[in-house]
Amino acid sequence: MPFDIPFADRLNNVETSAIRELFKLLGKPGIISFAGGFPDSTLFDVDGIREAVNAALTEEAGGALQYGATEGYGPLREQIAAFMATKGASALSPDDLIVTTGSQQALDLIGKTLISPGDKVIVEGPTFLATIQCFKLYGAELITAPVDGDGVRTDALEALIAEHKPKFVYLIPTFGNPSGALLSAERRRSVLEMAVRHNTLIVEDDPYGDLYFGEAPPPSLLALSDAVPGSRERLVHCGSLSKVLSPGLRVGWMVAPAALLAKATMCKQFSDAHTSTFAQATAAQYLKAGRMPATLAKVRAVYAERAACMGAALRRELCDAIDFVQPQGGLFVWARLTGSGGRLADGGELARRAIDQGVAFVPGAPFFARQADAATLRLSFATVGPERIEEGVRRLAKALQG
Amino acid sequence: MPFDIPFADRLNNVETSAIRELFKLLGKPGIISFAGGFPDSTLFDVDGIREAVNAALTEEAGGALQYGATEGYGPLREQIAAFMATKGASALSPDDLIVTTGSQQALDLIGKTLISPGDKVIVEGPTFLATIQCFKLYGAELITAPVDGDGVRTDALEALIAEHKPKFVYLIPTFGNPSGALLSAERRRSVLEMAVRHNTLIVEDDPYGDLYFGEAPPPSLLALSDAVPGSRERLVHCGSLSKVLSPGLRVGWMVAPAALLAKATMCKQFSDAHTSTFAQATAAQYLKAGRMPATLAKVRAVYAERAACMGAALRRELCDAIDFVQPQGGLFVWARLTGSGGRLADGGELARRAIDQGVAFVPGAPFFARQADAATLRLSFATVGPERIEEGVRRLAKALQG
Repeated sequence: MPFDIPFADRLNNVETSAIRELFKLLGKPGIISFAGGFPDSTLFDVDGIREAVNAALTEEAGGALQYGATEGYGPLREQIAAFMATKGASALSPDDLIVTTGSQQALDLIGKTLISPGDKVIVEGPTFLATIQCFKLYGAELITAPVDGDGVRTDALEALIAEHKPKFVYLIPTFGNPSGALLSAERRRSVLEMAVRHNTLIVEDDPYGDLYFGEAPPPSLLALSDAVPGSRERLVHCGSLSKVLSPGLRVGWMVAPAALLAKATMCKQFSDAHTSTFAQATAAQYLKAGRMPATLAKVRAVYAERAACMGAALRRELCDAIDFVQPQGGLFVWARLTGSGGRLADGGELARRAIDQGVAFVPGAPFFARQADAATLRLSFATVGPERIEEGVRRLAKALQG
Repeated sequence: MPFDIPFADRLNNVETSAIRELFKLLGKPGIISFAGGFPDSTLFDVDGIREAVNAALTEEAGGALQYGATEGYGPLREQIAAFMATKGASALSPDDLIVTTGSQQALDLIGKTLISPGDKVIVEGPTFLATIQCFKLYGAELITAPVDGDGVRTDALEALIAEHKPKFVYLIPTFGNPSGALLSAERRRSVLEMAVRHNTLIVEDDPYGDLYFGEAPPPSLLALSDAVPGSRERLVHCGSLSKVLSPGLRVGWMVAPAALLAKATMCKQFSDAHTSTFAQATAAQYLKAGRMPATLAKVRAVYAERAACMGAALRRELCDAIDFVQPQGGLFVWARLTGSGGRLADGGELARRAIDQGVAFVPGAPFFARQADAATLRLSFATVGPERIEEGVRRLAKALQG
């Protein structure tokens, strides 16, 4: 008798990703890929990480290799609090945060602790794909708030909060994946004020905030929350070392009100007991060694050059066929096909044609939880050098013509 | 206006652990602790792990520090398949398993992919505490099957399967936490046969199977499944490096039918994207270097000596006040207060008195999902040397008298 595995009902809420299908085509030789969401591995500070792990194994082998506290490795929590202080979140104590297995796990713990099936959650349209699926697995009904060049439109967001009374609002205010948008200082304050006014929890996901190209972006919602009474107790902040140091460490963190941290810690105990202490002790030694400022300066400079190169090439090669806001940080250009002159305005179709021309990117539609804009594209400049970026954009122009 | 965090309904299914409260008392100076569930960190092969991580950073820094496949790092999946082959699971390909963030995450993924609220799951009474809570968070209704000195009683188990038609049965057949029991070869075969007969999924959790003291235990359910037609497609097997190499790496794995692995991988993508590639590449190098046999020989010899010492001391000091089966492997003695001569037969009360005498252990009642046996105790010999074990047992005897 063949055996059908009796899967849980929650799996009916998620679909297999359209993007996965596309990624299967990326193995084609010679392809230039703007499709990834990865930092450039040639920028990793391998020597610094090697020194850090060797220091950890010399100074604290027991701690680095044994079971650890579910909340996170003490010395790392201290280093993260100090790192956050350099970014304006100065009143943070190590007890105000827990370490998570990448910020993806912070999202999972938020879903697990907060979402009951049928609960409404507001996200940006577009937003991070893995957030959509993560929250859907817990049964969330997602509502999308529109985004423009200054980030989420706070007028529309407030109307949606008033209408739907969501369990929480999930935002990536700084150089978000995929929009690359930067929420203005004024709108940040407005988001915090509406959290208090509507008694709503806000989740700020901030994996890209350190990757700015020129001036530093406005302070995070977390850093600003001191100035808006009552907002801090309605705010969750997720951070990560993945985009700036190494995704392979899987070191992220979550700052939240004490009651939420306690429940998230309990859930984490049954999710993975704790984040790898081997990786945590390494990250703690790395931060302690004071290498982060130089690492940040290096990656900012490289990504800034590539972003400028891609922006210029897109304007030159695709002219009025494409519309985008030049990113001020992060890893992505988020663009929209205008359809001008009767040209193709479907991102999915262009992605397929682009593969034939030897260039890959991700169509934007899957990043919308609802009301997808099929004309959108996400182009990552992170892992491609300037010459190849220019060649890739030329191929993209050809794909659009063909 | 104070803000009450709107927690999800699923949190109502779990309680704060009674054991946690006890652990707070362990900081008392001079206390001898039989309470932990940890391997002894002084046995960790720090030099071997240092060589492994340095080899990983030299030979494959990109892979060790970049994002990786959700299924696991290819070279590690190969090494794990080869390691499993040395333990009798010879037909295993790397594609038959995924790497998980400790075997705790395998349990979480099993819950996420299989349990809908209200589903019944059969576990042993007693069983691993974090399994109980993990499955309850997904809404499982737990049924307990009784355990004796030869592991789960298969006659009772079959009757419970027939009565409850569970989503799956969860077993720790080899030196389980807390029972320490070893499921006999005959019962192993019987479990596989009833899986086929009743068309029921069996989950075998096997973190302790490598820690045997004399002869090797009977083959795992996974290794035996080749001999029972139809059983392999109804079997999930969870393994881990935590008890034999290092818990801090958080490297576990899950062998399962392809359809279940695919759904577990999808869920893992939204749980933590992937297990630390830094830890995975290190573990792969360690296994490739061929150090595991010597490491296993060392830890087996040390734990065997401690187990023998604890068994002898318990018999000598507590005589007929206590009843237990001498463990043939693992980290635990599972004992029962007999109440003989009118002495205390409550494990929780003895645990409190024992703290006053300077020795700690974990009462057994919380390890039962239902129908707790309050007379039981879990004593770990893993992290305490022979002399301290003898002193600790003397203190325990005093606590029982006092």
